[in-house]
Amino acid sequence: MQPTTITGVTVTPVAFIDPPLLNTVGVHQPYALRAIIRIETDGGLRGVGETYADTAHITRMEAAAEAIIGLDVFALNRIRDAIDQRVSRMTVTGGDGVAGMITTASTTDRVFSPFEVACLDIQGKALGRPVSDLLGGAVRDRVPFSAYLFYKWAGHPGAADDGWGEAIDPAGLIRQAHRMIDEYGFTAIKLKGGVFPPDEEVAAIKALHAEFPNIPLRLDPNAAWTVDTSVRVAAELDGIVEYLEDPTPGLDGMAEVAAEAKMPLATNMCVVAFDHLKPAVVKNSVSVVLSDHHYWGGLQRSRQLAAICDTFGMGLSMHSNSHLSISLAAMVHLAAATPNLTYACDTHWPWKTEDVVKPGVLGFSDGAVPVPTGPGLGVEIDEDALERLHQQYLDCGIRDRDDTGYMQSIDAGFENTSPRW
Amino acid sequence: MQPTTITGVTVTPVAFIDPPLLNTVGVHQPYALRAIIRIETDGGLRGVGETYADTAHITRMEAAAEAIIGLDVFALNRIRDAIDQRVSRMTVTGGDGVAGMITTASTTDRVFSPFEVACLDIQGKALGRPVSDLLGGAVRDRVPFSAYLFYKWAGHPGAADDGWGEAIDPAGLIRQAHRMIDEYGFTAIKLKGGVFPPDEEVAAIKALHAEFPNIPLRLDPNAAWTVDTSVRVAAELDGIVEYLEDPTPGLDGMAEVAAEAKMPLATNMCVVAFDHLKPAVVKNSVSVVLSDHHYWGGLQRSRQLAAICDTFGMGLSMHSNSHLSISLAAMVHLAAATPNLTYACDTHWPWKTEDVVKPGVLGFSDGAVPVPTGPGLGVEIDEDALERLHQQYLDCGIRDRDDTGYMQSIDAGFENTSPRW
Ligand SMILES: [Mg+2]
Ligand SMILES: [Mg+2]
Repeated sequence: MQPTTITGVTVTPVAFIDPPLLNTVGVHQPYALRAIIRIETDGGLRGVGETYADTAHITRMEAAAEAIIGLDVFALNRIRDAIDQRVSRMTVTGGDGVAGMITTASTTDRVFSPFEVACLDIQGKALGRPVSDLLGGAVRDRVPFSAYLFYKWAGHPGAADDGWGEAIDPAGLIRQAHRMIDEYGFTAIKLKGGVFPPDEEVAAIKALHAEFPNIPLRLDPNAAWTVDTSVRVAAELDGIVEYLEDPTPGLDGMAEVAAEAKMPLATNMCVVAFDHLKPAVVKNSVSVVLSDHHYWGGLQRSRQLAAICDTFGMGLSMHSNSHLSISLAAMVHLAAATPNLTYACDTHWPWKTEDVVKPGVLGFSDGAVPVPTGPGLGVEIDEDALERLHQQYLDCGIRDRDDTGYMQSIDAGFENTSPRW
Repeated sequence: MQPTTITGVTVTPVAFIDPPLLNTVGVHQPYALRAIIRIETDGGLRGVGETYADTAHITRMEAAAEAIIGLDVFALNRIRDAIDQRVSRMTVTGGDGVAGMITTASTTDRVFSPFEVACLDIQGKALGRPVSDLLGGAVRDRVPFSAYLFYKWAGHPGAADDGWGEAIDPAGLIRQAHRMIDEYGFTAIKLKGGVFPPDEEVAAIKALHAEFPNIPLRLDPNAAWTVDTSVRVAAELDGIVEYLEDPTPGLDGMAEVAAEAKMPLATNMCVVAFDHLKPAVVKNSVSVVLSDHHYWGGLQRSRQLAAICDTFGMGLSMHSNSHLSISLAAMVHLAAATPNLTYACDTHWPWKTEDVVKPGVLGFSDGAVPVPTGPGLGVEIDEDALERLHQQYLDCGIRDRDDTGYMQSIDAGFENTSPRW
C-alpha cells in the first residue's frame, strides 16, 4: 500500500447563501459558514472533511493542523491525542467556536472530527473501499432523511423573495412541506419550533398531521418551553409526533418532562458530549440521542455513541446544522454502518443552493440518499466552487454565527431567553 | 485491492496440556480446549481466529461458519447479523457452550468474536497493515501483562510433577512468582483465589506484597465470599491490592461491597455482556470492567466497551482464559489500540507449553509483548502443530470444560458453592 503519512493540511473557510430560517434564538444570517479540511499524504492520496467555521474553531483547527503533520492517517488515536494536547494548551477567546446551539460539546472531539473524516477518506482510498466499510460495513443501501421545515420570512430584509416564500403559519408550512416532499420524497418531517407561542406550533403540527397522516412528525423548539408548558404540549401531541426534541432546557427539566410525556424525548442540546451520557442515563432525561459526528468526535466516536445508546436503552437519530456535501457524505456513510440508527436523519439540505464538490455522487430519491460505493467518502472537491465560496466568506464579513445579533439588527426588542414560554 | 469474499470457513478444535490449576469451582483438567477458526476468501487471503471449544459452542460456530459464506470480510455488521439470525434459531442443548466461569455472556457476541478477528486479520493483510491500525492505531508499542499465580498441585493425580511444583501456601506462591517474573519480567501480579479460606489468601497476598513491595497485586476469588467476608478482606487488603476482583456474586452484592471497600472492585463475572452495563452503572457495582474480546463480541465491540467504561467513569482491564497465540495476538492488537486500558492485561501464557502457530512473532520482555507491526494479526498457523493438537483433542476425550467434575473425580466430597465463605 502507498504510504499515508500526513504531509500537509489546509483549512479553508467558506460561506454559502442561507435563507432567513427562524428559530428560538433568532434567525439564520444571509450566509452560513463552514470550513473545508484537506489533508495530503506522502503517497499522494488526499482526503477531505467539513466542519464549523466560527473564529475560535478555525483558530483551534489551524493549530490542530500543525500538530498532526507527520502522523499516519491510520494512527487516529495518536492524531486525536496530538490534537487534544495542542487544543487543551490554547487560550482562545471569543466563545466556544461552534455555530448555533451546540455550546458545551467537547472541544477536542469537535476539533478532531473533520480531521478524522479526512483520514478515513484517505484510508478508504488506500483500500479502494467506501468509508462505510471502515465502520463495520453498510447495513442499508440508502439512508433516509427527514424534511426539515422552518418558519421563515419570504426573504432576508431588503432582499428579494428567496424562492421558498414566507412560512409563518400552518398554511405556509404545509406549502413548504409539499414542495420539499415533491422534490425529495421525504418520508419524515421535522419542524423547527420555538418561534411562535406553543399553541400556534401545536396547531401547525396538527395541521401537518392532518395533511400528511402517514408521515412521522417531530417538533424541536430548542428548549423554548418550561417544564409545565412542555408537559402540556406533550399531552396535546400524544400519538402525533414520533419524538419531541428538546422541549425544555437541561437534564433535570428534561427528566421531569420525560416522566410525564408519552412520546420519547430526543436531544441535541442536553446530551452533546460523552460526559453528559452518565447523568442523562441516571436521571432518565432522554430516550433518543441525536448523534452528530461534527461534535461527537468523528465517525468512529459516533459509532461508540451508537453502542452506548444501544447498551443503555436509548434510541438514536442524527442531528444536522447547515452543511455541504462533504458532511452529507460522511453522515451517509456513518448512518449506513450504524444498525441502531432507525430514525430518518436530519439535514438542512433543501435550504442550500451552493456547494464545494463536483455534482453527481449524492442524490435524494424517495427521501433517501444511496450510500456511495466508491473509495473513501466518494466526493471530490470542485476547486473553482471552493475558491468562489471561500471568496464569498472573505467578502461577506460574517466570522461567527450569530442568529440572535442578526435578529436584533432587525428587531431591536428581540431577546434570547430560554425557556421563553 | 484483491477481492475478500468469504469462500470457506473451518472450525478446528484443539487440546493442549494444562497444569492442575486450582480455583473455587474445582481444578483445571489435564487438557484445555480451544477452537481455531480459519477463513478463506476468493482473493486468496486467509485469516485466523481462536475461541472456546465446548461442544455447544462448536455446534453454534459450525452453523455460523455456513451462515457467513459469500459475505465480504469488511461487512462485519452483516456478518454479525447473519450469525445472530442463525444462532438465535438454534436449540443447542448441553449448556452455555463456554468454558469456565463466563456463563451468561451474549451468545451472538461469543460466536461472532473469532470470525470477526479472522476477518480483521484478512482486512489487515489486504491493507498491508497490522490489525491495531484497523482499531484506531496503536497508542503503545508494548502491551504489559500480569503474572497469573495459581494455587496448584505438583502435577495431575497419577502424573509426574509438571515442572512448576506444588503451590498451596504463601511460600509456594512466592516461588511461583519469582520464577514467572524471572522468565517474563512481569510488573504486576494476579492471584487466583477462592481456593483456601480467606484468611489464608489474605496472608498469601500480604506475603507477596512483602516479597514484591513495588509490584501491583490483584486477588480474584471468583465470587467465593459473602458480602461480609468481602468487606472484611477488603479492609485487610486496603493499600495492598490495586483492585479486588469479583469478591462476591452478583451486581447487588458487589455494590454492597463497593460501598465499603477502599480499593476498586473489578469484574469478569457480573458484567460480561452489554446488557449488564446499565444495571452495573445504576447500582455502582464495579469500578473496573475486565474486557475479553472472546465474549464481548470481538475487537471492535471491545473498543465500544472501552468507550463505555471511559464514558461512565469505569476503569478497564483485560481478562484471560487459557489461550494460545492467536488470541494473544488479538489481545495485544486490541490493548495497543485502547488508550484507557491502563492496567496490565491478564494472560494464562506461562502455563501453556504447546501452540498452533509458528514461533517468533510474540515474545515477552519486561512483562510486555511488543505489538506486531506486520500485516493482519501477524501470526501464522503451523499446520503440523495444529494437526497434532487437533489429534490430541480427538484423543483426550474432553469435550466440555468441567473443573468441578474433574475435582469431584479426585475428591468426591467437593462441592461447587458460591459464596463458599
Ligand atoms: Mg435539535
Ligand atoms: Mg476474574
